[in-house]
Amino acid sequence: MDAETPKRPKVVIVGAGFAGLTAATKLAKADVDVTVLDRHNYHCFQPLLYQVATAELSPADIAWPIRHVLRKQKNVQVLLGTVQSIDREARKVVADTVTLDYDELVLATGVTHSYFGNDEWEKSAPGLKRIEDATIIRRRLLMAFERAELSDDPAEREALLSFAIVGAGPTGVELAGAIIEVARHVMPTEFRRIDPRTARVVLIEAGPRVLPAFPEALSDYTREALEKMGVEVMTNTRVTNVDAKGVDLEHGRLDAATTIWAAGVVASSAGRWVGAECDRAGRVIVEPNLTIPGDEHVFVVGDTAAVKRTDGSPVPGVAPAAKQMGAFVADVIASRAREAVPPPAFVYHHQGDVATIGRHAAVIVLPYMNLKGFIAWLFWCVAHIYFLIGARNRIAVAFKWFWDFITFQRGARLITDQRDQI
Amino acid sequence: MDAETPKRPKVVIVGAGFAGLTAATKLAKADVDVTVLDRHNYHCFQPLLYQVATAELSPADIAWPIRHVLRKQKNVQVLLGTVQSIDREARKVVADTVTLDYDELVLATGVTHSYFGNDEWEKSAPGLKRIEDATIIRRRLLMAFERAELSDDPAEREALLSFAIVGAGPTGVELAGAIIEVARHVMPTEFRRIDPRTARVVLIEAGPRVLPAFPEALSDYTREALEKMGVEVMTNTRVTNVDAKGVDLEHGRLDAATTIWAAGVVASSAGRWVGAECDRAGRVIVEPNLTIPGDEHVFVVGDTAAVKRTDGSPVPGVAPAAKQMGAFVADVIASRAREAVPPPAFVYHHQGDVATIGRHAAVIVLPYMNLKGFIAWLFWCVAHIYFLIGARNRIAVAFKWFWDFITFQRGARLITDQRDQI
Repeated sequence: MDAETPKRPKVVIVGAGFAGLTAATKLAKADVDVTVLDRHNYHCFQPLLYQVATAELSPADIAWPIRHVLRKQKNVQVLLGTVQSIDREARKVVADTVTLDYDELVLATGVTHSYFGNDEWEKSAPGLKRIEDATIIRRRLLMAFERAELSDDPAEREALLSFAIVGAGPTGVELAGAIIEVARHVMPTEFRRIDPRTARVVLIEAGPRVLPAFPEALSDYTREALEKMGVEVMTNTRVTNVDAKGVDLEHGRLDAATTIWAAGVVASSAGRWVGAECDRAGRVIVEPNLTIPGDEHVFVVGDTAAVKRTDGSPVPGVAPAAKQMGAFVADVIASRAREAVPPPAFVYHHQGDVATIGRHAAVIVLPYMNLKGFIAWLFWCVAHIYFLIGARNRIAVAFKWFWDFITFQRGARLITDQRDQI
Repeated sequence: MDAETPKRPKVVIVGAGFAGLTAATKLAKADVDVTVLDRHNYHCFQPLLYQVATAELSPADIAWPIRHVLRKQKNVQVLLGTVQSIDREARKVVADTVTLDYDELVLATGVTHSYFGNDEWEKSAPGLKRIEDATIIRRRLLMAFERAELSDDPAEREALLSFAIVGAGPTGVELAGAIIEVARHVMPTEFRRIDPRTARVVLIEAGPRVLPAFPEALSDYTREALEKMGVEVMTNTRVTNVDAKGVDLEHGRLDAATTIWAAGVVASSAGRWVGAECDRAGRVIVEPNLTIPGDEHVFVVGDTAAVKRTDGSPVPGVAPAAKQMGAFVADVIASRAREAVPPPAFVYHHQGDVATIGRHAAVIVLPYMNLKGFIAWLFWCVAHIYFLIGARNRIAVAFKWFWDFITFQRGARLITDQRDQI
């Protein structure tokens, strides 16, 4: 637009999660051309994935087409593709569908499950990071009840009605609470041969308490609340093997036809693409301004980046951190584009931690206070609806939660794509 | 419950579409034990499948777990399984998951697409009968736009933005109207390299007019309405071949990356299972009381049955016909169970025909009047919401239609499971 600056910098953002999407929107007024590249056509609101996995919400309730979110931003184009490699010399991103030149590159490709070197466990114990993961878990959860109804063998029934969740961080806690509710409140009237209320939901944690990142009092509260709902909580319990029929624990065996992995994550391949040094979890160790050492034009943000707080502790892999990093690099890039001095270092502002425990309780850690119980759950509902993208999704999710709350029904109990079952 | 009749008849219903589900619910008060067997865990509201295929609704909006629908009916159990064979001598249904004894058997297994002997066309031209079909078509539709945005070759772009729909019955008309709206009203602001408004939607019909089952005046109205929306309508045009890149017509070639088959159906394997005579479309030719010749205890209902009206014309394959047949056989079975005289013959009451044309118009044929235009569309909306199962689905669908109507947005534009693409 400006005749004196004929060459607008090309910004390529890989990944449209919280970090990448925030970076793109914050560049709306910058004098740059932005390309957002993602392997999916949608942005997924990961904090509610567990509700898709437990048949409360449909995938479309928590996902929105990236190009729809960015449709009004004329300096952005959205392309579908998976990165194959990055040529830092030539400043090119090579994807399966397209090759893109860049002046500034933002890598925001997130994390995936980590099985701590036991990748063969994945088949038996899917994790929960993508929409596809959620529908896989939903299918296994629902099929377990269907298969139990079909079985005449008491031992087989018992294993089919046992659900093991490995890892008691927020995702594990939320899954355990939701699954026990499905078993105790949604399913009972619908089966004739089995009693779904007898289902076991076992939450297994290697450390000494659930929600290790939370204050100890809230961990205790959470454990009690889960146990009151019927969840068996095993802390200080290490998993030594996972197979299709259950998990081996340090001190015994748990037969469970369904195992879900919520125990650890590993960063995406961004570090490998750009040849940067990574920490043990595969996260790229970045400079204070979130660029990689030795290349001022490659930024790594969100869960893929290993970033320290001012007190030296790591920035956690949560949505607000990803958004803050996305906004920061947008600021740096926009400053450079207008030849202003960019901010020198990213500073993380911790907004709190949150986990729900079923449909009546939650725990929330805020800077100056902690909340627990029903009031925390209401707070959680309002906050999550607020952060969803698009009024339609907000209304649809609010309606479904309200409906579930008064009826105990779950509206998305479809077993689709039965490839890996029966 | 009745001490004098120790042996309650066992009724097995295979298939929980409109016919099977109605038969099951109408047997609620009969002194029989009912087993409903289906290969899916949900009942699908097929009349709205095209809205899932065109990203307006989510699968869960039009599907409901069968066991949830029947949860209050204590004499019914629901089992998941696919029939392998039926032994009429021993009165057994053999499924992959279970073997069931029956005294009365109701086969309500519906239809699938017919390619008139060219089954190899299916890969290139999916039909629309099941939830999975709808998500396949949705993925291809959305991917066509994504791939066009990525392409630099004008001819390739044009083929990617061409959509061929074979068959101009209600499904073909509804798909054509919905797809042209997606191209002209939903997509335009979101792409940077292509203009989605240039997309071609071509509706191909071998016969002389669209909606052949409707009065000619409504066919003419529908054709005009579609053409005004931008659909190209080709009547008297026979398709001679379908491949991944388009369709061969009698008088030329249409390059289209996306082809959808709405031209014909063939009945499920029910006839083969029971060794009964079938018509050309594979439908079982049944007695007036919907049993198969020579076996009073095997009923065939819904689209799988070839039934005549009193005037000799065939009963059409529509939801009301299926429900009426389901109710009829429930009446026969209940009468037999209480040793009353069962009704001798099924009589079909035609309630009308209906097809929508995009978001503003529909055509409806009622016994004493015809409707067209906006008022018909409103009537269609209300009727379809009324016939959905469950208040939650009714509210959710009504809300989404209202939202789409005022915003032109489509809320389910997710490309999931990209196996067969890029």
